[in-house]
Amino acid sequence: MVKIRKELRDLEVYVPGKPIEELQREMGLRKVVKLASNENAFGPSPKALEALKSAIYNVHRYPDDGCFSLREKLSERLNVKGENLIFGNGSDELIILAMRAFLERGEGVILAEPTYLLYRIAAKAAGLKVETVPLKDMRYDLETMASRISEDTRLILVSNPNNPTGTYVTRGEVESFIEEVPNDVLLFFDEAYYEFALGGEYPNTIEYLGRGNIITSRTFAKIYGLAGLRIGYAVADREVADVINRIREPFNVNLLGQAAALAALDDEEYADFVRRETDKGKKYLYEEFSRLGLAYVPSATNFVLVRIGPRAGEVYQRLLREGIIVRQMDAWKLNDYIRVTVGREEENRFFIERLETILRG
Amino acid sequence: MVKIRKELRDLEVYVPGKPIEELQREMGLRKVVKLASNENAFGPSPKALEALKSAIYNVHRYPDDGCFSLREKLSERLNVKGENLIFGNGSDELIILAMRAFLERGEGVILAEPTYLLYRIAAKAAGLKVETVPLKDMRYDLETMASRISEDTRLILVSNPNNPTGTYVTRGEVESFIEEVPNDVLLFFDEAYYEFALGGEYPNTIEYLGRGNIITSRTFAKIYGLAGLRIGYAVADREVADVINRIREPFNVNLLGQAAALAALDDEEYADFVRRETDKGKKYLYEEFSRLGLAYVPSATNFVLVRIGPRAGEVYQRLLREGIIVRQMDAWKLNDYIRVTVGREEENRFFIERLETILRG
Repeated sequence: MVKIRKELRDLEVYVPGKPIEELQREMGLRKVVKLASNENAFGPSPKALEALKSAIYNVHRYPDDGCFSLREKLSERLNVKGENLIFGNGSDELIILAMRAFLERGEGVILAEPTYLLYRIAAKAAGLKVETVPLKDMRYDLETMASRISEDTRLILVSNPNNPTGTYVTRGEVESFIEEVPNDVLLFFDEAYYEFALGGEYPNTIEYLGRGNIITSRTFAKIYGLAGLRIGYAVADREVADVINRIREPFNVNLLGQAAALAALDDEEYADFVRRETDKGKKYLYEEFSRLGLAYVPSATNFVLVRIGPRAGEVYQRLLREGIIVRQMDAWKLNDYIRVTVGREEENRFFIERLETILRG
Repeated sequence: MVKIRKELRDLEVYVPGKPIEELQREMGLRKVVKLASNENAFGPSPKALEALKSAIYNVHRYPDDGCFSLREKLSERLNVKGENLIFGNGSDELIILAMRAFLERGEGVILAEPTYLLYRIAAKAAGLKVETVPLKDMRYDLETMASRISEDTRLILVSNPNNPTGTYVTRGEVESFIEEVPNDVLLFFDEAYYEFALGGEYPNTIEYLGRGNIITSRTFAKIYGLAGLRIGYAVADREVADVINRIREPFNVNLLGQAAALAALDDEEYADFVRRETDKGKKYLYEEFSRLGLAYVPSATNFVLVRIGPRAGEVYQRLLREGIIVRQMDAWKLNDYIRVTVGREEENRFFIERLETILRG
């Protein structure tokens, strides 16, 4: 038997939200509502769908390895150069690639807790030393994170807005933080929910380009409804982008992902619609949670973390039996909570109705 | 500026065959024939296309991280257990993951030369020590490769049939080789062109499952015509498969890739058609190369390596201007050759006609 690298022997595995088909198989259910993975409940961007209808005839060709058309359009949109962009098989891949490009085994990464689970898993797989800083009032505590920077520190990951709390750090907080972070420490802003959080005090970290140590990643998975196609991107200074581009797998972004993303960028109307519907859905969920006496964390995203109490695990299981998939929070050590993705109106109502029955039962 | 890992500073980059749209842009051409990337010239599997037409409505959902349905069908087809299968974002990803799972920086990998370029690039990126063994009469020299195994050796990669020569090592040669390779050295058979090579003395390395050190990878990119969807798989013993599964990115295989691959497995009729047409095309190319006095390497795949002589670089450029993309072989140090993918009948004729004109000019 071949030898397995030491740090991989007892690696945690990322456990995704349960797929709809899996619950259908397991419980013999027909109707299943999935509010577990912060997917876009309203479907893919219609313009992306139109593009897919013709692009499918071309899948015998390899994708454009350089994402030429998408790079051109996105660089115009973001007002950055093409050389500042990196495309990934989902923005998750960009996080993993950044670790592989810039960190040696044993070097340090600072993470918040709780935050997106992949950070810790990827850091462990890369053999990195992980330092965690608890959230403060359910928000990233950038001040404490900065104070933990040591000689070893090479990377700080910031999920903004944070998954699973839905909260964000403000422009002012980020700007003070950036000043505290030495130039040779990579600062990775994971902004998967950027388009939901826009406005108010929410920062646009692409503006900090030019400092040589900042990466901002975003995705087509959420507001554009293309999670299944695995396409995300990052913006970074040329030297940083170039190294990641050199170590990524050739053709890492599939052909249909590129075609759909290109079309989705022209679908701002759809993004506006999703934002409006999500806001309506959140308002409804907030009101209902309050009526049911449940505390929740006000969210800048398309999901809400809600405190169920000691029965959270049981409630999660009973919702499953009713055909409703939400996210159980044990892996984040938020055992009293569930996280629910904002769905379509009827899905939100169905969820609240069953939740109420279960809580009263 | 952040520090870049030492071994990445002057990393080679994989340069893919030129995309059709790129040549169209560069030369203002409308008609372009691409015979450069060993794609399936006959298009995607029709059953895969049908599956895509309905699956596109589901791309707002994340893919099934475990590839449940595809795993079930493929494990039946191959007569292995589901736990023996690993799916990748193309089989390229599986090569990279195997290196990351089982090799430490500084450990040794044995490669042939010339072979698939990604092996060397991925090995360099992982900081591995690369030992290369030249081909013998354009075929892998497994005997010499076995003799080079040292204390450091942890991995041997075998492209079978070999890209770019199209030749294969036989069942007998592989079986002797396996006996020479210590149990703690990983043996990776990359069989991207397996379905073209079937028959004769070509081995089925999945039969060697159970030895604990063998991985066999195959792909939906070639005979099934799904290169753009990035989906490949590998078969390995459970412990080996399990580690790779633990370090891969969540959702590494996109939703449409899974849907198309599942349907393509039911399309053996199409695979037979592609095989027949490819054989016809190869026969035509062989005859024409002979007529033109060009030596070629008889191929078990859908591409042919042909010796043009010192003018190969010029011929490649002139073909480009005519709208024909083949593969220039400088990166493999086969400067006198070009590699041409077998196309549809009219594409092969167009290529030969222009090649003849250029050679006579």
